Amino acid sequence: MSPINPASTLLSEAPKWELGPHADRESSPTEWIPAEVPGAVQLDWAREHEWDDPFFADNFRDYEWMEDRYWTYRCVVPSHPDQCPNDHTLWLRCDGVDYACHVLLAGRVIYTHEGMFTPFSINLEESHAEPGQTLEIRIHPVPKSTPTNDAGREQANRCCKPAVSYGWDFHPRLVPLGLWQVAIMEWRPPLHFSEISLHPVVSDDLKSARLKIEGLYHGHPDGYLALNLTDPAGKHIHEERIKLDPSGSFRAQLTVCKPELWWPHDHGNQPLYCVVLTLHDIKDEPSDTAKRSVGFRRVRLVANEDNQRASDDPPLTRDYPPMTLEINGRRIFIKGSNWVPPDVFPCRVTPETVQPLIDFAKNAHLNLLRCWGGGLINPNFFYDLCDQAGLLIWTEFPLACNNYPDDPAYLAVLDQESKSILKRVRSHACQALWCGGNELFNAWSGMNDQSLALRLLARNCFDFDPYTPFLQTSPVYGVAHGYYGVEIAQSGREAIEVFQERRHTAYTEFGMPGPGSLEILRSFIPESELYPPRPGTAWETHHAFQAWDMDTDSWLGLLTLQRYTGPHHFIEELVANGQLLQAEGYRHLYEEVRRQKPRASMALNWCFNEPWPCAANNSLISYNGVPKPALRAVADSCRPALASAQIPRLLWEPGDTFKCTLWLLNDVYEKLSATSIQAILEVDYRSEVLTEWMCPGADVNRNNKGPECNVGLPQTSESRVFHFHLKSKEYPELNSTYTLFFNLDREDNPLITP
Amino acid sequence: MSPINPASTLLSEAPKWELGPHADRESSPTEWIPAEVPGAVQLDWAREHEWDDPFFADNFRDYEWMEDRYWTYRCVVPSHPDQCPNDHTLWLRCDGVDYACHVLLAGRVIYTHEGMFTPFSINLEESHAEPGQTLEIRIHPVPKSTPTNDAGREQANRCCKPAVSYGWDFHPRLVPLGLWQVAIMEWRPPLHFSEISLHPVVSDDLKSARLKIEGLYHGHPDGYLALNLTDPAGKHIHEERIKLDPSGSFRAQLTVCKPELWWPHDHGNQPLYCVVLTLHDIKDEPSDTAKRSVGFRRVRLVANEDNQRASDDPPLTRDYPPMTLEINGRRIFIKGSNWVPPDVFPCRVTPETVQPLIDFAKNAHLNLLRCWGGGLINPNFFYDLCDQAGLLIWTEFPLACNNYPDDPAYLAVLDQESKSILKRVRSHACQALWCGGNELFNAWSGMNDQSLALRLLARNCFDFDPYTPFLQTSPVYGVAHGYYGVEIAQSGREAIEVFQERRHTAYTEFGMPGPGSLEILRSFIPESELYPPRPGTAWETHHAFQAWDMDTDSWLGLLTLQRYTGPHHFIEELVANGQLLQAEGYRHLYEEVRRQKPRASMALNWCFNEPWPCAANNSLISYNGVPKPALRAVADSCRPALASAQIPRLLWEPGDTFKCTLWLLNDVYEKLSATSIQAILEVDYRSEVLTEWMCPGADVNRNNKGPECNVGLPQTSESRVFHFHLKSKEYPELNSTYTLFFNLDREDNPLITP
Repeated sequence: MSPINPASTLLSEAPKWELGPHADRESSPTEWIPAEVPGAVQLDWAREHEWDDPFFADNFRDYEWMEDRYWTYRCVVPSHPDQCPNDHTLWLRCDGVDYACHVLLAGRVIYTHEGMFTPFSINLEESHAEPGQTLEIRIHPVPKSTPTNDAGREQANRCCKPAVSYGWDFHPRLVPLGLWQVAIMEWRPPLHFSEISLHPVVSDDLKSARLKIEGLYHGHPDGYLALNLTDPAGKHIHEERIKLDPSGSFRAQLTVCKPELWWPHDHGNQPLYCVVLTLHDIKDEPSDTAKRSVGFRRVRLVANEDNQRASDDPPLTRDYPPMTLEINGRRIFIKGSNWVPPDVFPCRVTPETVQPLIDFAKNAHLNLLRCWGGGLINPNFFYDLCDQAGLLIWTEFPLACNNYPDDPAYLAVLDQESKSILKRVRSHACQALWCGGNELFNAWSGMNDQSLALRLLARNCFDFDPYTPFLQTSPVYGVAHGYYGVEIAQSGREAIEVFQERRHTAYTEFGMPGPGSLEILRSFIPESELYPPRPGTAWETHHAFQAWDMDTDSWLGLLTLQRYTGPHHFIEELVANGQLLQAEGYRHLYEEVRRQKPRASMALNWCFNEPWPCAANNSLISYNGVPKPALRAVADSCRPALASAQIPRLLWEPGDTFKCTLWLLNDVYEKLSATSIQAILEVDYRSEVLTEWMCPGADVNRNNKGPECNVGLPQTSESRVFHFHLKSKEYPELNSTYTLFFNLDREDNPLITP
Repeated sequence: MSPINPASTLLSEAPKWELGPHADRESSPTEWIPAEVPGAVQLDWAREHEWDDPFFADNFRDYEWMEDRYWTYRCVVPSHPDQCPNDHTLWLRCDGVDYACHVLLAGRVIYTHEGMFTPFSINLEESHAEPGQTLEIRIHPVPKSTPTNDAGREQANRCCKPAVSYGWDFHPRLVPLGLWQVAIMEWRPPLHFSEISLHPVVSDDLKSARLKIEGLYHGHPDGYLALNLTDPAGKHIHEERIKLDPSGSFRAQLTVCKPELWWPHDHGNQPLYCVVLTLHDIKDEPSDTAKRSVGFRRVRLVANEDNQRASDDPPLTRDYPPMTLEINGRRIFIKGSNWVPPDVFPCRVTPETVQPLIDFAKNAHLNLLRCWGGGLINPNFFYDLCDQAGLLIWTEFPLACNNYPDDPAYLAVLDQESKSILKRVRSHACQALWCGGNELFNAWSGMNDQSLALRLLARNCFDFDPYTPFLQTSPVYGVAHGYYGVEIAQSGREAIEVFQERRHTAYTEFGMPGPGSLEILRSFIPESELYPPRPGTAWETHHAFQAWDMDTDSWLGLLTLQRYTGPHHFIEELVANGQLLQAEGYRHLYEEVRRQKPRASMALNWCFNEPWPCAANNSLISYNGVPKPALRAVADSCRPALASAQIPRLLWEPGDTFKCTLWLLNDVYEKLSATSIQAILEVDYRSEVLTEWMCPGADVNRNNKGPECNVGLPQTSESRVFHFHLKSKEYPELNSTYTLFFNLDREDNPLITP
């Protein structure tokens, strides 16, 4: 027995949970198996019955029946431990139930709950619990707004469960259920915390910060709250005693003068203050303690420079919404990515799985992760790690690609869940942007500005965290999502070329698919199916084929791959070709959006990571933290300063006139010095200097556009790839290399034997 | 002494108010003059000092000094009248103070208030008032965020006063101050109403309606509230006794089964139910009574048909916001206009001034008025009259063309004012749309989606009236404002032609300027300045010249007028020409937007009426209810069904090929029968039938596009105008006539002697 929550001094005990499925709400399990908590019913069942890895081949289909069962957890009410003071009472603490449940004591319902993101605690002694009685948590079946099992994400449109679990183009249909977070017994003193929420607000002039502390307590109001603030150097800077409100709440506010400001990692340090809150009882004895860290930053979303309106011809519509993040008064160009759940089972997402992903992001010079609305609202440790890493977070509420209706029952749960999320997350310095959800204002979702769910979220964000920006959805007007591929299906043009013509304010999703690495592929594809990839195999269930509606070849894209990189002959070649094309595609897109600064303000690819091993996907990092070569390319493109070439496309015909425009990209808040930059074309190991740009450097946070250069490509080539290099004489850290592709499959190509 | 509020049974008395200006808050007036209440300090001062009409010539300039004075109203605390029961207490009731004030009793401040739209009452006996004591209401100077007097509307950006008062292109700089609504003494019984707010909500299936009744009372909670509902036929359908909450509030909810639904006048009737609320004291005696009428309708803003997104080429931004009003499940095409304050002085806007304007709108087949955010939030009688008339209202909060800052003091007043407005107006069936304000998301305002003022308004609308649509501003994405003139200055093209190329979801402002009628011009232009119109005269102060930034010739538009209608030789000719051009311009714009149905959903011209006599303006009706010929043209164009011609422009060259496309427009929810429609060109009194369209009629609420027709125009013409007629053989009520213009001023025109 030990305090399981480091922020709490309460005596607690993890019960021996057991678990079993049953058909309906009134019945009981006929088979009980040991349960791990935090966990998922699927994992417990698979462990007990020695099932294979659910991620191998199409094993996930075996779990389908579990969706429509009730699952009851049970444990025994413990007796009062000797070392625990007599006045302590027994509580059940549930930090997260996936998704709805009844709590029963000796067969009697004592509590009902819906929603993964709102913790609850039950005073068991008030419920007349006796030691030895059975406590049950009866988990309801997966919520589905339509009963048909062949339906997908739309079944999630009346609940606050991540829609991705119902199946997506990178996620199997596998909907977890169970006690996904801590569920323990606690002996609590007469006076203890029930809820704590911090709300730091930096003043307009950045010279002071308010820290609001609000919460609820349980117990007699004749104690007090002791508040102790320590600065990032560990120095105590504020102590205060706060009276408890007899209504059961407390509220304090303190001011920090000249706060050390928190910055994203590419712009400064991440100083964190520490708040210790202690409840003292009437005898002045400390009764309960909580410790939180908090950083101070001012975040705003301001209008993009030079990109106010789509057209100047009257009659006029509105200007574009602002999309430039300003942190502590500094406009920050966002180089980021879209975070998806790093595991199908949220209970398996731990600091140990998250920390390497955050390190990858930071090392790739990414400064923001958009936590996409189809996925999970991350636990606190995620935000703590991002606070420490200086990684900005865009948090979306759990709505995605559905029409969430104006239904009072749904809205009541959304209200509860969003308030819980807001009260928890608003204290984190990394939390830079709230968003109602993913692609809700597009035809495939069908919501709009009048949808009550979004009006409710706007209301709650205003009430609980008004100084952090709120977007109704992504994309808003002026912002772009897509494309997800090298070539746009509708027009046959390369996405790279189309991006160069656009004038969006932000590009918050764009994708380039590529296969997983061989170790990933081997982890879930039976050897017999490994090569060549075919529909109807584990390749397809893991999204290599028919994953995305518009393109049955996605995400592997064999036809495109063949055109760009030629035929493949073995699995290693296929993977290498596909990963190269993905990497080079991302390189151009990131750099193109950067070149559009300050008209554009954000470049976020779709997506960063994976919830299970995908055969092919737009991700930069495969399941379980295995990076693809694309991550290296993105890291190159997102260097704070670099020489960049605007090249119209990836695929060239022999004999074409190759042309490009040189740029110096600078997101640093320092001037870049002058440098001479050579543009070098390298074909078949022969290099030719096309031009030497006497680049005058660049202003603070400004790009500099250089000269164009042109050259005729050779009529033949031995290699299907050629390279374009930018080399700075003085600052080799600015150097860039682009790999481009020759189309050697033309019918008139002398290399091809008909 | 008599109850002044028909909804109240309280004994009341209008005090003898006196008024005087003084320099600062601590001083007192040296001169006291009689004051009319409701009124304005400017009108009292002018009356007492026998000043000329402030609307004549540039008399309004004489009022400028009044802006920066304090103005104190005073009266004497009356003694308890004999006929009033002893337990009644004396209250000061102020329904509207323009704009901020202190209330003083015997020189002691007992109350402070800011905001025109929040009424307040003060219990004078609790303030220890004695009969004979002086009660003062000290009105603060005009609120100005910048002190310079040459500044305009931007001075209003930190207050909730109508920005239009600070000067606009159709409004003089004349900022009213004073007790603009009722300010009286009331003897109130121990138990009386403090606030009543109704909230009718129709069910999704339209088969029932809830009526929520919320409010505050003053007195002992041991009485009850009697609630009595009468249906539109006068039949009592519900009686109930409601307990009073000891906290001072009451709350009731009743359900009306199969409610008779309220419709806009062009789609049905306006049945109104009557609610009588009576407070009964502990002895079961009625103590206070209020009576309200309420209509039931369900209003939604739904996506426009066939107009979801601006482009289908990936990457995609969001779809257009919904802009089609749906009333009781029926999509209603909006033909409306922009309502501006019908008087510079809000105290002069009475049912007697408003009723004729509503009648004009209804007779012109308009079904919605947008109460523009630069103006006043109208008093209840306005909404009552619109409820009765079946005229939909779009209510904008008092923000317009300014950047209202994230300033806590401003936001607090906006919060108070918007809640008062919402609680009052939400009960009205005519209230169809809430909007944050005018053109706030355009560069000249500089607000955006993150502005706290708009996030606050969105929050309050969601909290108080969630089932009525809310727009952040107008225009939102896809909606268009402008142009305001026959020819677009930037391109020289006719607005009519440009509209035909556009694909906006709604056109919520478009203007065609025209001069006022002769009787209006003579009412404020000195005879010596009447003709020809010149800058620097009353023509200019009344907006004929340099009224609109972009065009110094606006609003009279002499150069355009000359090109279209030829030279004028006397004032009558100028007025007739200008009014003809305005009328014909509006005819084409309204019909063009109607032709774009269902892609477009709303046609609202700028503007309907005027706050003072304008020499020239885009209005349909001059000051004080004098209609212009444009109103007749708009009435023609807004007939529920009509034959319409899409004609590319107003001005033609002799010898041009005239072409147009025939349409049958139908906003009626009935099929239109087949009819043969002749297209007739009439030049110099000679008519030629161009085509005869055997029109098959039209579907319910659908237009029908007919054939094109072409004809060569003659090389010369005796008249500068020619006509195009559409004549239905069977249904002459569909007939339309267009007046078009010959450009006879070309240098090669044989009629012109060089």
